[in-house]
Amino acid sequence: MKPVKVGLLGLGTVGTGVVRIVEGHQEDLQSQVGSPIVIEKVLVQNKSKSRSLTIDAEKLTEDPWDIIHNPNIDVIVEVMGGIEGTKGYILEALAHGKHVVTANKDLMALHGPEILRKAQEHGCDVLYEASVAGGIPIIRTLIEGFSSDRITKIMGIVNGTTNYILTKMSQEGADYAEVLKEAQALGYAEADPTSDVEGLDAARKMTILSTLGFRANVALEDVDVKGISSVSREDIQYAKRLGYEVKLLGIAERQDDYISVSVQPTMVKQSHPIASVNGVFNAVYVYGEAVGETMFYGPGAGELPTATSVVADLVAVVKNLKLGVNGKQELLSYKEKKLKTDEQIAAKYFMLLHVEDRAGVLARITQAFADCEVSLGSVLQQPNSSDQIAEIIIITHDASKASIGKVLQSFGSMEVVKSVKSVYRVEG
Amino acid sequence: MKPVKVGLLGLGTVGTGVVRIVEGHQEDLQSQVGSPIVIEKVLVQNKSKSRSLTIDAEKLTEDPWDIIHNPNIDVIVEVMGGIEGTKGYILEALAHGKHVVTANKDLMALHGPEILRKAQEHGCDVLYEASVAGGIPIIRTLIEGFSSDRITKIMGIVNGTTNYILTKMSQEGADYAEVLKEAQALGYAEADPTSDVEGLDAARKMTILSTLGFRANVALEDVDVKGISSVSREDIQYAKRLGYEVKLLGIAERQDDYISVSVQPTMVKQSHPIASVNGVFNAVYVYGEAVGETMFYGPGAGELPTATSVVADLVAVVKNLKLGVNGKQELLSYKEKKLKTDEQIAAKYFMLLHVEDRAGVLARITQAFADCEVSLGSVLQQPNSSDQIAEIIIITHDASKASIGKVLQSFGSMEVVKSVKSVYRVEG
Repeated sequence: MKPVKVGLLGLGTVGTGVVRIVEGHQEDLQSQVGSPIVIEKVLVQNKSKSRSLTIDAEKLTEDPWDIIHNPNIDVIVEVMGGIEGTKGYILEALAHGKHVVTANKDLMALHGPEILRKAQEHGCDVLYEASVAGGIPIIRTLIEGFSSDRITKIMGIVNGTTNYILTKMSQEGADYAEVLKEAQALGYAEADPTSDVEGLDAARKMTILSTLGFRANVALEDVDVKGISSVSREDIQYAKRLGYEVKLLGIAERQDDYISVSVQPTMVKQSHPIASVNGVFNAVYVYGEAVGETMFYGPGAGELPTATSVVADLVAVVKNLKLGVNGKQELLSYKEKKLKTDEQIAAKYFMLLHVEDRAGVLARITQAFADCEVSLGSVLQQPNSSDQIAEIIIITHDASKASIGKVLQSFGSMEVVKSVKSVYRVEG
Repeated sequence: MKPVKVGLLGLGTVGTGVVRIVEGHQEDLQSQVGSPIVIEKVLVQNKSKSRSLTIDAEKLTEDPWDIIHNPNIDVIVEVMGGIEGTKGYILEALAHGKHVVTANKDLMALHGPEILRKAQEHGCDVLYEASVAGGIPIIRTLIEGFSSDRITKIMGIVNGTTNYILTKMSQEGADYAEVLKEAQALGYAEADPTSDVEGLDAARKMTILSTLGFRANVALEDVDVKGISSVSREDIQYAKRLGYEVKLLGIAERQDDYISVSVQPTMVKQSHPIASVNGVFNAVYVYGEAVGETMFYGPGAGELPTATSVVADLVAVVKNLKLGVNGKQELLSYKEKKLKTDEQIAAKYFMLLHVEDRAGVLARITQAFADCEVSLGSVLQQPNSSDQIAEIIIITHDASKASIGKVLQSFGSMEVVKSVKSVYRVEG
C-alpha cells in the first residue's frame, strides 16, 4: 500500500512527540497498518526557530493552506491549539476530504458536535483521544469498551496541574499560593493559571466525557464549575482527619436519563480508588449499570503520553483508509439531553461552620438543616482557638443541591453563625 | 438493516448476563449499530432445567450443531467454557462463516493463534475481550489504545479468587487455609481451587495479554508459574512491616525484544498503584516506552461485568458486519518470540532466612550473595523467638533469576543456614 501522508498542524510539545513516535516506531506502525506513515508537512509559526528535533527544513511551512489544501495529504493532525481559527482549518480540511486527528479539548468541547457532523457529511474520520486525559485511552473505552453498558457515573481527575497542587498541599501541609508558585516554576502550571485552577480545563474535558458516556450532547455551559483557588490548607487537614482527600473532581451523573455535570473540589473517601491518584496523574472512574466500578489511570499530559494517543488515533484512521470505511462511525449522541434541576442533583456535603460558643447553638444549626429536609450523617462540635467561637463540622446524608443552598441561605440570617468556612461535596 | 442473529453456546453465569444485557439494552444497542440484535438459539445441557431467566423454550437446544450449522445465525457467542470440544465447535463455526465472540481464556491461551488464523482465512471476526479481566476493556486497550507505543511491562492482578484470599490474609491477619475455606463458602473459590490458587488461571490470562502487548505469540508453557498456596500469614506480616503488600502478579516484561512472562506471589511496594487493588477486583498495569505508567481497574468476573465485555465485542462484530469489514483485523503477532534466559530476567528479591545465631554468620551469608554477584539493598538481622536461631531478612538490588538460584543452592550446603523460610520477587 502506498504511504499515508500526514500534515501536522503545530510543532510544540505534543507535535514534537508525534514526530518522534511516528519516526521512531515506524517499523511497528507499518507492521500494523501495512503501509508507511509519513509526516509530509508541518505547520510552524517560525520556520527558522531552533528546535530540539531534527526535521527536514523543506517539510516546514508557515502557511496552513499549504497543508489544508495540499492534495498529497491524507490526514491532518492538529496539535496547535486555539479555537475559532483552528476550527476554520479543520472544517476546511474536512471539506477537502482529509481525515482529522486532534488533541484539542477546547475545540472539541465547544464545537465537537458541529465538527463530527461535518466529518460525517464528507465521509471523514475525526478522532480526538488525546483531548482528554493525555495517555489514557478513555475515549475509545467509552465508545467501544462500554458500548454495551449504560454508564451512570463518570468521575475524573482530568487536570494534572490542580491535582499536583492539591497533592502537594495534602502531603506537605503547604499553602495553595506557595504550591502554585512552585508548580509554575516547574512548568506544571502556566503563568496565567486561571483555566486550570478555576476548573475550566476540567470542565471542557468533562463536556467531552459526559457527551460520550451519556450519548447526549452536553455543552460546556451545562457544566457547573468551581475551581481550587479557595481550598485552604486547613480544609485539607480537616478532610484528612476525617479520612478524606480533597480532589478537583469532574462528576457526571445520570439517573433515568436526567444528567448533571460539575467540576468542584470534592472530599473523596481515602478508600475510594480515585483518592490515591496523586501528582500530575489523571484518572477516570466509570460506573456502569452492568460493569460496576472501573477506573483508568495514567499520565494526563506531556509530550510522549499525549502523542501516544494522537498516533493511536492516526493508526485507527489509516486502518480505516485501508478498509475504505472512514467516516462510517455512527454519531453517538442519539439521546436527547435532559439536565437535572438543582432539586434532582443529590450528594453528600461537608460543612465547616464558625458559630457562637454558647448553649443551644448546635440545636439551632441542626434545626436549620431539618427545616430544609437535609438529614445529617455526622456532626462534630469543638472549641476554636479563639474565644467564644465554636467550630461545627457536619457531613450530611444525600441532599439535593437546592436544599443545601437553602440551608446556606438560612445561615446568612442567623446571628449565631459567624461564618461558613467551607462547603465541599463528598464522594466515596 | 435486518436483525443480526446470535447463537449462544452456554447459559451459565456469563451466558445469562449476555441475554440480560442484549435484551435489557436493546434500544441502546440498536441506536449504535442500526439493527436489532436477536438471541436466536441457546445451547444448554438440559432444556428442562429451571432458570433464573425467562427465555423462550423454543430457543433452547441441547445440540450444538443446531447453532453451528444454522444458516440463520451470524454470530456465535461462546460462554460454555471447555477446551478441545469447544475449539472444535468454534473452528467449525468459522468454517461456516460465522463470527465468534468468546470469553474462554483457556481456549484462547492454548489455541488463540490457530483460531485467529482460521478466522482470517474465512473472513471472520474472533473477539475475546471477556477472556481476561472480566469487565475491564484491556484487550482493546492493548490492541488499539497503545497501537502506537512499545509496551515494555504488563503487570496484572488477573485472578479475583487469589486476590480475595491475599487481601483477607493481609487485612485480617488470617491464615491461607482458613480464608480459602471462607472463599469457597462465598462462591469466590471453586471446590477444587487448584487452577486459581496455583496460578494457572492467571498464567492463561498473561499468555493472552503478553501476546497482545508484545506482538509475539507467547505460549502457556513460556509462563513461569507459582501459586499462593505457600504464602503464609507471617510472610504477609513481614511484607507489611517493610511497606509491601503480597499480590499474585502476572508479570510480562520486554527488553530489546527479549521477553519473559511469569506469575508468582510478589511483594509490591504499598505506594505502587497496583498494591491497593483489593478483594475480587482485577487490575492491569501497563508501562509503555512513550506513554509511561497506566493502570486499568475493574471487576474481574461476575455475570454482568463479564457479559458487558462479551456484548461490547458483539457490538463490534455487528458494526463490522454493517461495514462489510469482518475478518480484516491484522494478525498482531508479527514479531518473532525470543524468550529471556534466567540470566536475563532481572528483579529484586526478598528472602527470609533462619540461621544459627552466632558470630560471623551474617558475614558468611552476605558473602554468599557477593559470590553470586547479587548486591543487597537492605539487610536486617533479628533474634527469633526460639533460641539459637536468628532471622535474616534481605532485599536484594536487581539480580538475575539465575544468580538468585545459585545463592539459594549455596545456602543448601551451608550448615549455618537452617532454612530459607521464603523468597519473593519484589516490585515497585
